[in-house]
Amino acid sequence: MSSSDDSLARLAAVIESRKPANGGDPEKSYVSRLLAEGPDAFLKKIGEEATETVMAAKDGDPQKIVYEVADLWFHSMVALAYYGLSPQNVLDELERREGTSGIEEKALRKVRERSVAEMGKDMP
Amino acid sequence: MSSSDDSLARLAAVIESRKPANGGDPEKSYVSRLLAEGPDAFLKKIGEEATETVMAAKDGDPQKIVYEVADLWFHSMVALAYYGLSPQNVLDELERREGTSGIEEKALRKVRERSVAEMGKDMP
Amino acid sequence: MSSSDDSLARLAAVIESRKPANGGDPEKSYVSRLLAEGPDAFLKKIGEEATETVMAAKDGDPQKIVYEVADLWFHSMVALAYYGLSPQNVLDELERREGTSGIEEKALRKVRERSVAEMGKDMP
Amino acid sequence: MSSSDDSLARLAAVIESRKPANGGDPEKSYVSRLLAEGPDAFLKKIGEEATETVMAAKDGDPQKIVYEVADLWFHSMVALAYYGLSPQNVLDELERREGTSGIEEKALRKVRERSVAEMGKDMP
Repeated sequence: MSSSDDSLARLAAVIESRKPANGGDPEKSYVSRLLAEGPDAFLKKIGEEATETVMAAKDGDPQKIVYEVADLWFHSMVALAYYGLSPQNVLDELERREGTSGIEEKALRKVRERSVAEMGKDMP
Repeated sequence: MSSSDDSLARLAAVIESRKPANGGDPEKSYVSRLLAEGPDAFLKKIGEEATETVMAAKDGDPQKIVYEVADLWFHSMVALAYYGLSPQNVLDELERREGTSGIEEKALRKVRERSVAEMGKDMP
Repeated sequence: MSSSDDSLARLAAVIESRKPANGGDPEKSYVSRLLAEGPDAFLKKIGEEATETVMAAKDGDPQKIVYEVADLWFHSMVALAYYGLSPQNVLDELERREGTSGIEEKALRKVRERSVAEMGKDMP
Repeated sequence: MSSSDDSLARLAAVIESRKPANGGDPEKSYVSRLLAEGPDAFLKKIGEEATETVMAAKDGDPQKIVYEVADLWFHSMVALAYYGLSPQNVLDELERREGTSGIEEKALRKVRERSVAEMGKDMP
């Protein structure tokens, strides 16, 4: 595991330690509070930070883009932790796509399947 | 950082090579096509994959969660590349928050500022 | 309410008639297909059209804004129909807020509750 | 104009009166504050309420669905007002689609165009 994977693994360990079951205190920690409140609390943040990423990108503001993508990935990691998953699972999935058939092949396959599903429909 | 070890850096390099300016062909590559079509094409995907992440989480389906977060991070990385940014910028931002003041301090500060801004309003 | 005058009620009636249980054919009708495929199909569209509304607004393009909000409301109405609800329920809720306490009072109350919930947190 | 269009027109008039240019006071009114803060304030809410609508639907909770769709439409109307548009523009667009070619024809046309655009791509 290298430096960028290290950063994510280290952050995942901090989040893990904030789980109420691991002694995290919802009164003191933002992450503990999100995890204690349950899925809707952090899932709502994922929708919110995705929108803020889109707005920062439309503004073309590099600093804001980095800031909002960081927020988006951070709250994604809280969700992963809640469901017993880790960023390594996500990196493995990204590598798997690249390794077996190309990242893009996967995306194109999805597109083709959808095209097939959407063809031949008559109105209305 | 060793490129052979680093998933995100390696994936970022693949995306970089798909830029039309670097020889990527929108007729052959999904990423090249997204980059050639411009911001709305990949920003739309960020909104879409965020929603799919939320739905997978509500279903409590670990495999789908990993799959959708991978899609979300992947399209975030296409956006980063388009604006001349890299996942390392995002990791640096996450580390910066952790290093200087705690990831959570940042989030709490934001919450407090909002609380102040929202208090003392009268209706309507 | 006169069905001939009421845009939303009329559109809701069209959507209702597209339910597979009411004879709608998923092979011929887009709405029937969404309803037959189930929640994720139209919920995904709500996330997608919300993002497209945000992008159209950032572009400041009035025609696109109207177009995307129409898409957003349309897919919201497919969701309402799926759960046995109607746009009238939404209008009633909007009126209720306005009637009893002011639309804005409601929003401010929510903000105040959140402020209370978020105060007094210590780091981290 | 009938009852449901009336509700929307009446709500639009309230929002219009909250514009700072029309005497709305951001210190007293939530809508005035959103309009004074500018696009990101209410666009962020559209992303947020879309996500909350999706979550309420996944929970299958009718009351919450109505509540969140009301929030979504309400903040869409704040956006419309900011850009000099009205819900009537959205209703006209929905009617236009229905009138000229069927609501669904439009959606299917979009799908077909996308299918054409996505076909014939080679990997990667």
